[in-house]
Amino acid sequence: MTLKINNITPLRGIVPPMITPLNLDGSLDLDSVKKLIEHLISGGVHGIFILGTTGEFSGLSYKIRKELISATCDIVAGRIPVLVGITDVSLEESIQLANYSEKAGAYAVVSAPPFYMNIDQQELYTYFNQLADSISLPMFLYNMPSHTKLNIELDTVIRLSSHERIIGLKDSSAHAVYFQSLCHFFKDREDFVLMVGPEEMMVETVLMGGHGGVCGGANVFPRLYVDLYEAAIEKDFEMIKSLHAMVMEISKNIYQLGGYKSSYLRGLKTTLSFAGLCQANFAPPIYPFSTVEVEELKKRYSQISAEMSIN
Amino acid sequence: MTLKINNITPLRGIVPPMITPLNLDGSLDLDSVKKLIEHLISGGVHGIFILGTTGEFSGLSYKIRKELISATCDIVAGRIPVLVGITDVSLEESIQLANYSEKAGAYAVVSAPPFYMNIDQQELYTYFNQLADSISLPMFLYNMPSHTKLNIELDTVIRLSSHERIIGLKDSSAHAVYFQSLCHFFKDREDFVLMVGPEEMMVETVLMGGHGGVCGGANVFPRLYVDLYEAAIEKDFEMIKSLHAMVMEISKNIYQLGGYKSSYLRGLKTTLSFAGLCQANFAPPIYPFSTVEVEELKKRYSQISAEMSIN
Amino acid sequence: MTLKINNITPLRGIVPPMITPLNLDGSLDLDSVKKLIEHLISGGVHGIFILGTTGEFSGLSYKIRKELISATCDIVAGRIPVLVGITDVSLEESIQLANYSEKAGAYAVVSAPPFYMNIDQQELYTYFNQLADSISLPMFLYNMPSHTKLNIELDTVIRLSSHERIIGLKDSSAHAVYFQSLCHFFKDREDFVLMVGPEEMMVETVLMGGHGGVCGGANVFPRLYVDLYEAAIEKDFEMIKSLHAMVMEISKNIYQLGGYKSSYLRGLKTTLSFAGLCQANFAPPIYPFSTVEVEELKKRYSQISAEMSIN
Amino acid sequence: MTLKINNITPLRGIVPPMITPLNLDGSLDLDSVKKLIEHLISGGVHGIFILGTTGEFSGLSYKIRKELISATCDIVAGRIPVLVGITDVSLEESIQLANYSEKAGAYAVVSAPPFYMNIDQQELYTYFNQLADSISLPMFLYNMPSHTKLNIELDTVIRLSSHERIIGLKDSSAHAVYFQSLCHFFKDREDFVLMVGPEEMMVETVLMGGHGGVCGGANVFPRLYVDLYEAAIEKDFEMIKSLHAMVMEISKNIYQLGGYKSSYLRGLKTTLSFAGLCQANFAPPIYPFSTVEVEELKKRYSQISAEMSIN
Repeated sequence: MTLKINNITPLRGIVPPMITPLNLDGSLDLDSVKKLIEHLISGGVHGIFILGTTGEFSGLSYKIRKELISATCDIVAGRIPVLVGITDVSLEESIQLANYSEKAGAYAVVSAPPFYMNIDQQELYTYFNQLADSISLPMFLYNMPSHTKLNIELDTVIRLSSHERIIGLKDSSAHAVYFQSLCHFFKDREDFVLMVGPEEMMVETVLMGGHGGVCGGANVFPRLYVDLYEAAIEKDFEMIKSLHAMVMEISKNIYQLGGYKSSYLRGLKTTLSFAGLCQANFAPPIYPFSTVEVEELKKRYSQISAEMSIN
Repeated sequence: MTLKINNITPLRGIVPPMITPLNLDGSLDLDSVKKLIEHLISGGVHGIFILGTTGEFSGLSYKIRKELISATCDIVAGRIPVLVGITDVSLEESIQLANYSEKAGAYAVVSAPPFYMNIDQQELYTYFNQLADSISLPMFLYNMPSHTKLNIELDTVIRLSSHERIIGLKDSSAHAVYFQSLCHFFKDREDFVLMVGPEEMMVETVLMGGHGGVCGGANVFPRLYVDLYEAAIEKDFEMIKSLHAMVMEISKNIYQLGGYKSSYLRGLKTTLSFAGLCQANFAPPIYPFSTVEVEELKKRYSQISAEMSIN
Repeated sequence: MTLKINNITPLRGIVPPMITPLNLDGSLDLDSVKKLIEHLISGGVHGIFILGTTGEFSGLSYKIRKELISATCDIVAGRIPVLVGITDVSLEESIQLANYSEKAGAYAVVSAPPFYMNIDQQELYTYFNQLADSISLPMFLYNMPSHTKLNIELDTVIRLSSHERIIGLKDSSAHAVYFQSLCHFFKDREDFVLMVGPEEMMVETVLMGGHGGVCGGANVFPRLYVDLYEAAIEKDFEMIKSLHAMVMEISKNIYQLGGYKSSYLRGLKTTLSFAGLCQANFAPPIYPFSTVEVEELKKRYSQISAEMSIN
Repeated sequence: MTLKINNITPLRGIVPPMITPLNLDGSLDLDSVKKLIEHLISGGVHGIFILGTTGEFSGLSYKIRKELISATCDIVAGRIPVLVGITDVSLEESIQLANYSEKAGAYAVVSAPPFYMNIDQQELYTYFNQLADSISLPMFLYNMPSHTKLNIELDTVIRLSSHERIIGLKDSSAHAVYFQSLCHFFKDREDFVLMVGPEEMMVETVLMGGHGGVCGGANVFPRLYVDLYEAAIEKDFEMIKSLHAMVMEISKNIYQLGGYKSSYLRGLKTTLSFAGLCQANFAPPIYPFSTVEVEELKKRYSQISAEMSIN
């Protein structure tokens, strides 16, 4: 089976939303970019998604976004597909990022709704159509209502799916009924790719016909999520039970420390710094954990790593 | 395995949230209550839940609620467990309903958070504890944030689960991460029952360790949901695929007509009236569909019934 | 000018939402009811509103609600209008409370939207019309979206205002544009009464044409709010400045202690207990402050009382 | 009285959030920029705020934003203060816009919270502090929770107000209690400027101590809002009544056509095109009204213009 455009194979599997390694001064930490990408590829991931929410796209200047696009495409060098987040509030800036991504060799772009103006579904439809018309790469829709204030309703997805460059959707709503409605509508359209955001629901959506997950935790433990995805494909419930429990332990221990709205992002990137895969520097308005919190997180990470190596 | 209280077996399976059959003047339609209950039991359901949201509890006077409790317990006569919704904004009224339910012979009661005052989790915890202390029946928590404005957070559930009379939770949030977090925490506590509300996500939650579903559509097609539940238990994916598609067709065609906030309730009860199982009368503030809408719904119902009998 | 029904004069001024004095066992504290009512009347208030949100209506059993209605009407004995909250989720229960209030001698009833089911404006319109058709007392609409999840939109108010028994609206949304839109639409309809909930915006709305305020703080300091209302009517800006500053001090020091969602209610009733006007007992799900918080509140209250007596 | 920095006089009065005139191809319509600015200045406004929500900042590329900053500062040429919106999701991009504005000769910059990431108040505080530390112009905070999902809480404003470059706040929440709380806290701090967004509440806030309004309608009718502001300062209630009624008519007839979330923006800019002050072109995701809607709006505008010239 090939996609409606470009004869590319539709995406399946685990596509980590890569964190963006930064130096203390806010510049791109290129060494860590390289290390992290090799870590992901050697972990068996099926693609890499840069400049998503986990990639802190919104806090980065355009200059750094472009550097990351180029670097990632160069380092990956075609080994796996690279997806680039081009979400913005300005259509023109999104188009420029898409064009840049194309030249750099990206596989596809990903766009959430414009997230400042309050608009209706018809405007959202027009906007996405206009964006898809203005670029050459295939595009994924990105549903992220907790951050954009705006749900891409099922009918809007259906209407947009007839655009030849709109090839799928990543849903981070965590709303299982919404995702099942998508799966049901597109069940005979294997070319329209449905990926889920929250890793805690990756297995169940794959069991029910979803195509994979954009799992943040795969930055740290790519193999775990790849194995879990494959277990879901194989319907190996013994394996699922054991690996999914790990995923839930990561969720509980790494993503909720301190009870901040930004606990997930802080927890994930700080944990990666323990693994030597980046520094724990963030783009404002995200800021580092306190020393005490870092120590607590380190303890939790050691425990999880230990359990992981036993299993 | 027995429950921590009363030596009763923990609930598993399909427990329809029974609609409340009403006459045009708002009185209880007892004939339909009987017909409907027999329809459900002969469809193989594992329990009946009355006076939930689907049962329009909030619109009913206390007099009618009590009539329904007595009638249901009498008609069911111990064949399957009867769960009674006692959700209220007044602790005292909830307790009275619980006492009444106990005398009538109910299996357990079900309570969502008090839904007028804006409160914090600590107050919610204290409230549920006080309620459980004041009654003798086992009690399910009922998470329904779209209607109560208040999520029962995981930590609050965990704290409440140590109360001997709090034996489980029904989650209607549709939030898959929340439900997976519950399943993960309680994975070694088989006595703490986790049921899911939205029928569109029943299968996937049972596959992942959930204990069953409170499926509105089971009012019309009890056998479908029971078969689907059993397919999930058996991990019979061919069967799951075919039956789940039916559930999704019901969701799409019956629950969303007209795009009202009350489309689900109107659609479900009106469809039941086509099947001769009740009249399409509602408790205010829910009102009947227009004639045109009823005709459209009838067409959709015929189509679904036809497909159902083929399969 | 007389109202469209009953030849009664339309309400103007300060109508405190009376707290409900309770004994420790949850029964009505009748002594305090008497003391509090005399305190309010001697403070010059223009009416009393019982069983509102501040009156904790939702937490009270129907038995206690009726006791309070009778007691209040008896004690007030026609000296000022008594308004009774009949907000409920069941139309039938609301009607019964309205009938009871009429017999007890109330001036009018007050109803917020039914607050469990999610409904659209058309259903809300039908519901309020049906309620007004089923009772004999005049009725105020009560807009309280933070508690009911449902705004009574301007168009709905306009449509409902043609019902002869719907004589006004109390708005607790704190949304100034909404209130100004109401004032503008009804500026030539002096019989349609527009009262505002949050006392912090009472003056400005009276200056702009609003008819008064349902000020919680008037339970403690009725004269302050009455004087402020009269200053607004007189456009005495020196007086306004000084009295409004007091109201804001009360808001800051009494209503926000501890940062709970229920801080307003806890703070108000506890302060009234310092003044010997009730006990600090609440209806679940509201619970008392801790001892430390009570001490802190007492200090703040003393300071405010001292300032008050100086001015 | 002078401001804590730069010896500038604190802002007072009407500061229209200028719409951004665009050509059909999305480029800046410089002719209209000139016409519009002269229209505003000759209408007596006390300042101009560009690149706010009404200025569609979020939909514009950085290139166009910079062109507008330069053009506006050049055209205004010091006659009145120019405020520049630098709201962004990236601190670095905000800083660059601030630096650009300073060189262009702006009076101050205005920043709403970063609006993609979900953060807590402490992160918001740190972010704004960091921003103010990194620029040289004075800065206004901009509270716009309907668009940013994030309220700048009173305590956060208070903490930020001690930064020498943070000189005021524009509040577009429409929440009267919030605004009164600000006014009360800062009542002895005349250097900290409090402006209100929604023009429907401009008068009442000025009567209560607010310093002015950022009134969108002043793009069309600057004199009306300036006169209303002065009437409020003079406490001329006859004048207030008549002019405020006009403002409410504009709100009702111009800002709500079609019931879209974008009705305000579409209505305002299209009306300005009737007045020959710009073309009715928008930055995506805002799109033009249909021909029928434009005709209806034209009728309404004629009526309002006629009434205006009578008065």
